[in-house]
Amino acid sequence: MSQSLLDALLNPASVALIGASDNPARIGGRPLRYLKESGFEGEIFPVNPNRDRVQGMLAYADLASLPKAADVALLAVPASATVQAVRECAQKGIQTAIVFSAGFAEAGEDGHQMQQEMLNAAKESNLRLLGPNCLGVFNAYKKFYGTFSTVLDGDFIEPGAVSIVSQSGAYGSHIAHLCRQRGLGIGYWVTTGNECDIDLSDALNWVVDQPEVKVVLAYAEGIRHRDRFIQALEKAQRNNVAIIFMKVGRSEVGAKAASSHTAALAGSNAVFDAVLRQYGVIRAKTTTEQIDIAYAVTRAGHIEHNRLGVFTFSGGFGIQMADDAEAAGLDVAPMPEAAQDELKQLLPYASPVNPVDATAQALTDLPMMTSFIQTMLKKGDYQFFAGILGSGPTSPTFATALRQTFEEATKDAPSCLKCLTMTAPPEIVRQYEEKGFLVYEDGAALINALGALVKLQQARTATRSSSDFKLPERIEIPQREMNEFAAKQILKQAGIPCLPEILIAPDDDPTLAANELGYPLVMKIASADLPHKTEVGGIRLNLKSAQEVSDAKANMLRHVQQLAPSAQLDGVILTPMLKGGRETIVGVFNDQSFGPVVMFGLGGIFVEVLKDVTFRIAPFGIDQAKAMIAEIKGYALLQGVRGEQPADIDALAKLLSTLSEFAAVHADQFDSIDLNPVLVLDQDQGVIALDALIVPRSAQP
Amino acid sequence: MSQSLLDALLNPASVALIGASDNPARIGGRPLRYLKESGFEGEIFPVNPNRDRVQGMLAYADLASLPKAADVALLAVPASATVQAVRECAQKGIQTAIVFSAGFAEAGEDGHQMQQEMLNAAKESNLRLLGPNCLGVFNAYKKFYGTFSTVLDGDFIEPGAVSIVSQSGAYGSHIAHLCRQRGLGIGYWVTTGNECDIDLSDALNWVVDQPEVKVVLAYAEGIRHRDRFIQALEKAQRNNVAIIFMKVGRSEVGAKAASSHTAALAGSNAVFDAVLRQYGVIRAKTTTEQIDIAYAVTRAGHIEHNRLGVFTFSGGFGIQMADDAEAAGLDVAPMPEAAQDELKQLLPYASPVNPVDATAQALTDLPMMTSFIQTMLKKGDYQFFAGILGSGPTSPTFATALRQTFEEATKDAPSCLKCLTMTAPPEIVRQYEEKGFLVYEDGAALINALGALVKLQQARTATRSSSDFKLPERIEIPQREMNEFAAKQILKQAGIPCLPEILIAPDDDPTLAANELGYPLVMKIASADLPHKTEVGGIRLNLKSAQEVSDAKANMLRHVQQLAPSAQLDGVILTPMLKGGRETIVGVFNDQSFGPVVMFGLGGIFVEVLKDVTFRIAPFGIDQAKAMIAEIKGYALLQGVRGEQPADIDALAKLLSTLSEFAAVHADQFDSIDLNPVLVLDQDQGVIALDALIVPRSAQP
Repeated sequence: MSQSLLDALLNPASVALIGASDNPARIGGRPLRYLKESGFEGEIFPVNPNRDRVQGMLAYADLASLPKAADVALLAVPASATVQAVRECAQKGIQTAIVFSAGFAEAGEDGHQMQQEMLNAAKESNLRLLGPNCLGVFNAYKKFYGTFSTVLDGDFIEPGAVSIVSQSGAYGSHIAHLCRQRGLGIGYWVTTGNECDIDLSDALNWVVDQPEVKVVLAYAEGIRHRDRFIQALEKAQRNNVAIIFMKVGRSEVGAKAASSHTAALAGSNAVFDAVLRQYGVIRAKTTTEQIDIAYAVTRAGHIEHNRLGVFTFSGGFGIQMADDAEAAGLDVAPMPEAAQDELKQLLPYASPVNPVDATAQALTDLPMMTSFIQTMLKKGDYQFFAGILGSGPTSPTFATALRQTFEEATKDAPSCLKCLTMTAPPEIVRQYEEKGFLVYEDGAALINALGALVKLQQARTATRSSSDFKLPERIEIPQREMNEFAAKQILKQAGIPCLPEILIAPDDDPTLAANELGYPLVMKIASADLPHKTEVGGIRLNLKSAQEVSDAKANMLRHVQQLAPSAQLDGVILTPMLKGGRETIVGVFNDQSFGPVVMFGLGGIFVEVLKDVTFRIAPFGIDQAKAMIAEIKGYALLQGVRGEQPADIDALAKLLSTLSEFAAVHADQFDSIDLNPVLVLDQDQGVIALDALIVPRSAQP
Repeated sequence: MSQSLLDALLNPASVALIGASDNPARIGGRPLRYLKESGFEGEIFPVNPNRDRVQGMLAYADLASLPKAADVALLAVPASATVQAVRECAQKGIQTAIVFSAGFAEAGEDGHQMQQEMLNAAKESNLRLLGPNCLGVFNAYKKFYGTFSTVLDGDFIEPGAVSIVSQSGAYGSHIAHLCRQRGLGIGYWVTTGNECDIDLSDALNWVVDQPEVKVVLAYAEGIRHRDRFIQALEKAQRNNVAIIFMKVGRSEVGAKAASSHTAALAGSNAVFDAVLRQYGVIRAKTTTEQIDIAYAVTRAGHIEHNRLGVFTFSGGFGIQMADDAEAAGLDVAPMPEAAQDELKQLLPYASPVNPVDATAQALTDLPMMTSFIQTMLKKGDYQFFAGILGSGPTSPTFATALRQTFEEATKDAPSCLKCLTMTAPPEIVRQYEEKGFLVYEDGAALINALGALVKLQQARTATRSSSDFKLPERIEIPQREMNEFAAKQILKQAGIPCLPEILIAPDDDPTLAANELGYPLVMKIASADLPHKTEVGGIRLNLKSAQEVSDAKANMLRHVQQLAPSAQLDGVILTPMLKGGRETIVGVFNDQSFGPVVMFGLGGIFVEVLKDVTFRIAPFGIDQAKAMIAEIKGYALLQGVRGEQPADIDALAKLLSTLSEFAAVHADQFDSIDLNPVLVLDQDQGVIALDALIVPRSAQP
């Protein structure tokens, strides 16, 4: 949707409130109260057929009486009256409307019909709808409050670098409150509810384009429009906007992963996970984590590297933080040897390596501690400084002395992100924050957030925009079941490496072809009806002569015919026998939400028992493919263990990327593609898809 | 140590304070201030050679002048004066002393010597020491504060069901503060510092025996006395005391696990982890988690099962909680069908399954919501009720109405643990807590804590006390390197299943033995000097006749002699060739802290690449062995995948338990035992240790 429409929704010059109430606690009264109290500078048109004034403001009897078409209409009327209200908005020429009422699609079939009716009414005149069943929006910069959320009942929220985009109004309110509690300002807040029209992706697309936004907290149960969603994620990366996502529905995956079929292995949750990873979005496991990371992003500058210096008065706290840091991907790099000596001279009892433990003795001589920390920061080259203060700052006098010491000690290290962990009353925490410190109560939460900063930065440099792809030409895929030979012909054209193969018709003599290919050979049954060849004796290995090939062909055809009398047999396929290499599995399936998804895993038990597979949505480049390969638990097997050669990971990455481009172009023509196994040979020796199955698009219902 | 000594330390009738200071902010002044202000009812003897009165109390010039030997002496003198003070305590006949000063073993060699000197002085007269370099102790029930921790500067801590035992004084203070902030009372608080004498295990042993204690928060960097530690953990289980442990040093394991040798695979961290699991102790990953679980334990009654009912006004919050619940091992069991209909009748828009989503509409009719929740609790048979309130209770008026509603709705379900998630000011949270609700801000934290309650309960029923073991008779293990044949003779005696084997001396004819065993056979070199037989061509498989056996023996001896000319060859071992089964690895090593530890894993890449191994300290029973087997990631392979028979897990568990008993009895005689591979046959077919290596105890330095 065009950006200007969302401008009307989130940055309106005029607002109509349909169902305006004199009672500021009611759904029709609260938005009016907010708009009045906040000091919104646009025009406000309360609509109420029964009153001349509402909350002291001039009210209009109906929409038709408004002096002009407002940029946005807030619909605070019951579900049953909404369709009519939408019609009137449309007639008035209003561009956007926010529908608060519940009782639509979420409430069953009748509600669903009513929602559709409302949407049809809006569409007739290009009126765009947010909701229904949503809590609305706010823009704290312009003091525009198009919401009845009680979260603003006590206090408004200061504008700031965080924005919130949430399908759930309750969740959106909850995290808005948590942000306020943490001292985080919120610029834009959008709840999308039933998403009959404007959805999360639309909102994200607009929000990540606003220059004030550094981080978006998003919440979704599902995604309606893949392309717009991906577009928003890509734009966020270009604009250096971090997205911290809470996507619920993780627990489904357990059940879905039970099947070993490519598509079922995914489960939409695993695909969602992959998409977020692919586009550098952090998926939070808890709401607290979401807030903790957002807090770090709002205060962090450019992240150059992942070196963390830990300063502590207590060895145990230091070790605890080092433990967490390793898990979060931070480098607890030791101080240079010479600098360690300097620290030792200042404080003989100190442990100067990193964590740097100044011991409680440092607290008895704060000027010395100042020099000590200055030396640590000057010589340590740390991106992150984490000072562990424990419950020290609970004492107000001590809190001040300590703050001044850390301020002085860290002032010459502007490129280092200065973090502290402490328990202290909120007002003391604020004092530290005002001096530029990030303050966390829990060390593990701090470290996790710093790890997220590093991941966000890495993702920014790694992701390639989908517009950069030069997608391949389209190949026609037959819209019927194919045998392996036919599937491979298509995949070869697409650039997937396969062995030379010759198809021998049922009545043809195989010996000439066999001699041409050379020995030993593998023979496989060619039949679109038999995707599982081993089950019908449709594979013979290690055929060493023309005679063996002839005998094998006759036996195979006879045997398969007996076991699968109704199968159409196209003959047999001859191909050279290849030894060595590591078996991997590559597949593509069409995900309901995200379209073609490429899966990769090692063969056998790795997939079947350990579910050790990974996903990317198509298309993606070589770098993403390499990241994908490195993600599986068994990656070390490809790097070479027990003195083995490393596998040809470059060629494997090329195959995955090539297949992803093919899948992107032909998504409408197949349900799934399986390359199982793909043999990965030693470094520089390439990869080979040994078997291939393309399941064409099933007929649409 | 005897319990009465710790009574003197933690529940004294009289206290001497050596180095008593008139300045209540100093180390020698703060404990006196605390004792005075708290209303400690015992006798207090300040000792100060320079003043008649200290903080208004009569002071004694020296220890000799005290009217009696105090139960405990607090030593607030510099390190350099401590040895002398300890001598004087000993002379006075004082039983226990707490040494605050740092500058001992933690500060280098000189300090180490001074610490030893102090300990020797104490031992001469049975004076027991806590510290040095510790923050002391408190007993909030008796208002005894033998500490200079600043955490009590502002407020004392109410006594309660939590106790804290921490090596680190800083950590102990930090979590004490967090407990107070969370409204958790603390009964006993012990910091052990350098542990020159009384250590964490001693303190744990005493604390878990106090009837007021329901949960202990423990912190350690390492363990000094295995047996006393295990004794404390066992006692805690018997007394229904939960221990929530923060053990730092996790990140070492990464490096240690790099080697594929049994002992190195463990790393002391993985062993510690296993010990805690084995004895039903929860190992917390973060400090916040430690507090969150303690909070739940203090408020929970007996846990019967793991069924969780989730009540929400917002679908998204409900799904999020269900996601977390699955991961935490809780059962989000659906409401019975009939009860679902009842709920639907009360609220047609509700989702009545579980999570039960009453939608925001329920808030408009609180009496109806009361019936709704009553029905849910009456029919759902839930152990845990989790109501999601979001930021609703931030509004004081709404908070009260909501609280009264939930109170009324849940009052008839006394056996159900009633939990709520909400963000609200502390005073509102307290009001809910006073009505019996557990309140968490974060849903994930609540669910994790409930999962811990279930695990604690399961562990109580599963663990078997080590005193229940009837350990086997001792077998003499030769204290020199052994060949495989000799090792197996010992292990067979111990009850480990092995194949029949015959040792053929270098000059003996193998044919008679071969005919006796039958064909096919395996031949292995017998040499204590060659533990890695394959590397020297010391294994031949599938020998099918007497002739093949004769030839193989001659060839093997010649070949091995060439490759390893200095090895002492004892001949060759003949054994039947076995096919099928799953290869596993079983090992035992002597851990520095915990003595003999049994390791189990699947063979090959599972151990080498995935580090998929698990540990238990010896001895343990069949049930623990089964839990151990089920812990590995590749467990499904033993249960049978792809239509395979399940493996004989009972026999494997028996082998692990038997080996653990053998290891416990013979710990002083070996460094390590490797059974690699142990072949696990199909169900009811048993297990076989195919290879065995015993490395005898290395000479003590």
